Amino acid sequence: MARSLVTIEDLSNQEIEAVFALADEFVAKLGEPGRPHRVRGRLPLAEDVVIATLFFEPSTRTRLSFESAMHRLGGHILTSADPRTSSAVKGETIADTVRVVETYAELIVMRHPWEGAPAVAAEFAEVPIINAGDGSHEHPTQTLCDLYTLRCEKGGLRDLNVVICGDLKHGRTVHSLVYGLARFGARIITYPAKGLELPQHVVRRLRDEFGGTWVRADQIDELPSGWLPGNGIYTVPDQLSLGRGQAESVHEIFARHSPFKTIDAVYVTRPQGERRREGEAGAADYPVVDTSFLKERRYRESRVMHPLPRVSELGYEMDVDSRAIYFKQASYGIPVRMALLAALLRLRPGLLAEGPAAGSAPPHVSRGGLTCGNEACVSNQESERRYLKPKFKLLGGDPLLVRCHYCDHEATVACVGRADRKKYDTHASRVGSIPAEELVLFASESAAREAGFEPYRTPQRAG
Amino acid sequence: MARSLVTIEDLSNQEIEAVFALADEFVAKLGEPGRPHRVRGRLPLAEDVVIATLFFEPSTRTRLSFESAMHRLGGHILTSADPRTSSAVKGETIADTVRVVETYAELIVMRHPWEGAPAVAAEFAEVPIINAGDGSHEHPTQTLCDLYTLRCEKGGLRDLNVVICGDLKHGRTVHSLVYGLARFGARIITYPAKGLELPQHVVRRLRDEFGGTWVRADQIDELPSGWLPGNGIYTVPDQLSLGRGQAESVHEIFARHSPFKTIDAVYVTRPQGERRREGEAGAADYPVVDTSFLKERRYRESRVMHPLPRVSELGYEMDVDSRAIYFKQASYGIPVRMALLAALLRLRPGLLAEGPAAGSAPPHVSRGGLTCGNEACVSNQESERRYLKPKFKLLGGDPLLVRCHYCDHEATVACVGRADRKKYDTHASRVGSIPAEELVLFASESAAREAGFEPYRTPQRAG
Amino acid sequence: MARSLVTIEDLSNQEIEAVFALADEFVAKLGEPGRPHRVRGRLPLAEDVVIATLFFEPSTRTRLSFESAMHRLGGHILTSADPRTSSAVKGETIADTVRVVETYAELIVMRHPWEGAPAVAAEFAEVPIINAGDGSHEHPTQTLCDLYTLRCEKGGLRDLNVVICGDLKHGRTVHSLVYGLARFGARIITYPAKGLELPQHVVRRLRDEFGGTWVRADQIDELPSGWLPGNGIYTVPDQLSLGRGQAESVHEIFARHSPFKTIDAVYVTRPQGERRREGEAGAADYPVVDTSFLKERRYRESRVMHPLPRVSELGYEMDVDSRAIYFKQASYGIPVRMALLAALLRLRPGLLAEGPAAGSAPPHVSRGGLTCGNEACVSNQESERRYLKPKFKLLGGDPLLVRCHYCDHEATVACVGRADRKKYDTHASRVGSIPAEELVLFASESAAREAGFEPYRTPQRAG
Repeated sequence: MARSLVTIEDLSNQEIEAVFALADEFVAKLGEPGRPHRVRGRLPLAEDVVIATLFFEPSTRTRLSFESAMHRLGGHILTSADPRTSSAVKGETIADTVRVVETYAELIVMRHPWEGAPAVAAEFAEVPIINAGDGSHEHPTQTLCDLYTLRCEKGGLRDLNVVICGDLKHGRTVHSLVYGLARFGARIITYPAKGLELPQHVVRRLRDEFGGTWVRADQIDELPSGWLPGNGIYTVPDQLSLGRGQAESVHEIFARHSPFKTIDAVYVTRPQGERRREGEAGAADYPVVDTSFLKERRYRESRVMHPLPRVSELGYEMDVDSRAIYFKQASYGIPVRMALLAALLRLRPGLLAEGPAAGSAPPHVSRGGLTCGNEACVSNQESERRYLKPKFKLLGGDPLLVRCHYCDHEATVACVGRADRKKYDTHASRVGSIPAEELVLFASESAAREAGFEPYRTPQRAG
Repeated sequence: MARSLVTIEDLSNQEIEAVFALADEFVAKLGEPGRPHRVRGRLPLAEDVVIATLFFEPSTRTRLSFESAMHRLGGHILTSADPRTSSAVKGETIADTVRVVETYAELIVMRHPWEGAPAVAAEFAEVPIINAGDGSHEHPTQTLCDLYTLRCEKGGLRDLNVVICGDLKHGRTVHSLVYGLARFGARIITYPAKGLELPQHVVRRLRDEFGGTWVRADQIDELPSGWLPGNGIYTVPDQLSLGRGQAESVHEIFARHSPFKTIDAVYVTRPQGERRREGEAGAADYPVVDTSFLKERRYRESRVMHPLPRVSELGYEMDVDSRAIYFKQASYGIPVRMALLAALLRLRPGLLAEGPAAGSAPPHVSRGGLTCGNEACVSNQESERRYLKPKFKLLGGDPLLVRCHYCDHEATVACVGRADRKKYDTHASRVGSIPAEELVLFASESAAREAGFEPYRTPQRAG
Repeated sequence: MARSLVTIEDLSNQEIEAVFALADEFVAKLGEPGRPHRVRGRLPLAEDVVIATLFFEPSTRTRLSFESAMHRLGGHILTSADPRTSSAVKGETIADTVRVVETYAELIVMRHPWEGAPAVAAEFAEVPIINAGDGSHEHPTQTLCDLYTLRCEKGGLRDLNVVICGDLKHGRTVHSLVYGLARFGARIITYPAKGLELPQHVVRRLRDEFGGTWVRADQIDELPSGWLPGNGIYTVPDQLSLGRGQAESVHEIFARHSPFKTIDAVYVTRPQGERRREGEAGAADYPVVDTSFLKERRYRESRVMHPLPRVSELGYEMDVDSRAIYFKQASYGIPVRMALLAALLRLRPGLLAEGPAAGSAPPHVSRGGLTCGNEACVSNQESERRYLKPKFKLLGGDPLLVRCHYCDHEATVACVGRADRKKYDTHASRVGSIPAEELVLFASESAAREAGFEPYRTPQRAG
């Protein structure tokens, strides 16, 4: 069973550190003199290996970065760069595509507009799958590059203060990044464009699964003196995120609190014009990071990062500012992706644990008609519904909260049923007494009735 | 003079067997333990060779398969994957394209929507051309993979019963396949979707050139007892080919005839939505092969094959059925294409005979305005008409039947003329007395008159 | 500081000859027996090198030619072949693109519809940039191939008579070519399609910078007897350039003049349909070179060249004429591009001088609002204006003529200003007394006034 990288969760902290240590080796051996982040030449560990890059969405940067990494490992690449020239236009499913391509190639790098598509690929393929970005969901290799860059620049990730600006809603790089930062002990201050805050489900995971502490910036004043979480996330409230003019008031709030006296990095992201919806900030009211934004003392040692491409949210005058490291950040992509490829292809054994990623319980497979509410989820696509059942992780709560196995969007379950008894209950607490294999989830009570289920008459009993 | 693979006819049976023997070698050396059909690693016979893949139609599978094969031979690839980014948009002809690209590369793999385009390429290029699919015409490397798969799975091709389902009209893979099966002695039972039977010209070639015997399935009852042809083709009549519900009656007919008691393989093809015309079966009334279709005893040892991609003509529940071998079939594409490349590039000498493929007489070059009736034929394209004359093979008969040299479509000749005497005759038998270099073919009598020809007054005499 | 090839001016004559000498070596070592212009196999000088080809415009020929050259040097290639799948659709600038891609690759080959885009790339990248064609501006590697072909075929370039036919206005290959021919001492006779003469700015550079002599063909009769310039350019007047029928009268004129008794090469170019504007010759009235055109005695030893692809300006019957060398010309692209890559990558040291190309004075950076008049110029594109200032070379004259640093289009300056004194003058002679760092150029007098400048009251004084 191959290891894949579909979400940043698929690697343990120890594994990420092992990948980074190998990247260090590549930097040491191939880095340009005086500019070690830029690797040149080759270190042919993969001479007998063929990989495939399947890009169903526009990309230059990420695809070329993977291909450069593979070339520098001495390996070989099959490229499908254009969604319109692929078998997908003939209606081929994700599952079929990867089961064919894995007979050609030892590893598949996939970018796809459908959220969760790489998770499906990893479910059906026997070779490693790397998610190179799926819709607004995740972009875990960008996160590895970002974390590695911060680690090289700052000597580590613990106790760093990182401001993240811009489109935190659609920006898949941001979602993977905040999980990664939280896991390694950095503190995150979010500075979203209007209407483009971190999605609620991302915030919840951050808090519940990665130990982040959620504090709104305008409530910081009310915190007990001396309060300083190990890692956490701090958000700039909606009304403060209207753009450049409002930034000052945020600065004032942070200024009164010592943990934020120094900002180690400002991570800027572009407006994702192609995903924008009504009511969300456009280019006009989008926060801009430039020398004026960064003139405060706390930004004196900040590194300014950007996953690129930028539009106009990051001033061009920053290019000559020594704090700007976004091109260096791009160049670290090569050694990091080389190390990741080497790890997943087992070219350097022992970097990753054997078997599947240490994971949670198997997800609940939908039988009661419950579907994911995210239109862009792979489980909602016509071609994929032919063979793919929606799956959910049960998060608990009443009403029962569930999370889509593929795209991580959350949904609320109106009632829970027991298949062998054809009974349902609107109280989520009933779940505890239903065997997993008999559990049915319904989006509404009427859906349960239509399926021939009747309500439990007696109140639920323990055990 | 290089050898090319434009149609499956370009290789003799002995040559195909030599290619398969080399594929066996690759499977033995590079096959995964326990799964030898999946080759991994490289066997660098082609380290100094550059080939080009020119794809003027969407493809992932075929192009990546060739490229993986070339990588595993240690070779190098130039890729043009998108018709819209090529010189074709500037109006370049096939002949010019290949005469340029052959100066860059030692072999050209071409897919093109125009039927016969690879034949034109092979006419003008000095390097080998491989047809990777031309319109609805042929796809000979798919056939090589299919035959090789059957041979590996069944130990040979002679005396096999193969059912071919679906779109037999537009499916180019099917056309190459039936010729190949007939040549190697398999028996073919066709099961077409409504309106999508094998084209008449394919049936004729199958019968006249490859020794196939044509019997309609509903006439099988009338055959003499004990009749069992060496190879043949059996068709399911139109009215029985309406879809799933009708399949039973076909089964009943076959059940009464011992040669069909066991079906060795069921070859399924998808509806070619992009080529569909009015009156032809769509997704709704297309035959579906699934566990229900295959529940009869005669299918117990069948292998289920599909050139992929599939849409919904092949049930997803088949994926876990041990009879399904379509992904294995895809993986055999690598060793077969490696062997074909090695053979055409003469990396392993002696596999193919020297000089051009053992062929028929040179085709008749149109002088009387006769053109191919197939709109998709390369000889009917504006850019190609600048330099390309229609060419035909004379098939005989009265009226005279001719077959397009490029796309194999047939046409009927209304009258034949003699250029030096400016005479024409509506009787095809006249052809025998006209020297080949003076023969002129006319689509109609009026075309002959317009060209200044007059009818022969005397009846045709012998010799 | 890396050397780039953005315009043919970037290489000195000596450097071009060094590149050609290396190409000779490749031809000698890798040329096919009996056909040495067609190189096969590899000479792996670049085994540890990765380059990128970024094509923002359709191309097969040029991209595949570079990639074949790189493969034959043993190197590795990242390809972005389709403008629509690149980061450019997300609004990324040229400068950002190359600063990222140079971290992946040691050299960038760029084709772009914006004129001057490769110049911007070279300004921002630290790796060599090769211009593979920018709009209607230049295509210097085609020129290297053309010059090398002529040199191989004719033993040298000095004293050759070269006729250039067709679209001399939009044809970027022609612009680079005439400079190259003039520099090496060939004589050029232009034979433009109606309305598609060499642009005035090209003629001026040819005359002023490359020592070409401009003579209209219909004035040749008035030249002093025995007049024979070392290199020069001769144009066929507009009224003689209407097409095939008119060619005779041109022939008569040239016939009377001995230097033109022999035409060494006829260079044909296609109508650039995609760039055609009203009033310009279309396919119908475009000059056609065929055996009839070439029947005059002076063409008996001519070589017929074409950068390809052709449409219908070059008759297909020429393909079997021994004077036709356009496919040979295409094949010389491989050894020449191999040599160019080896030179710029410093794989063979000493071919090119160290440091930047021996150049002129740094250009004037626009401060007074003067912009380039060419809509297709990179400096006029929305995304690029974010960071790019128009720049001009001062050509002198009154009114002052300037040339765009990026696209070489010319503009006239209405008045010149002095920034520290807020004064302007409509006399260009004032420029001499204004320090370069204070000079401001205005497109109009009103622009100067709007900028708060006032006219110099006193007449300009010396010194």
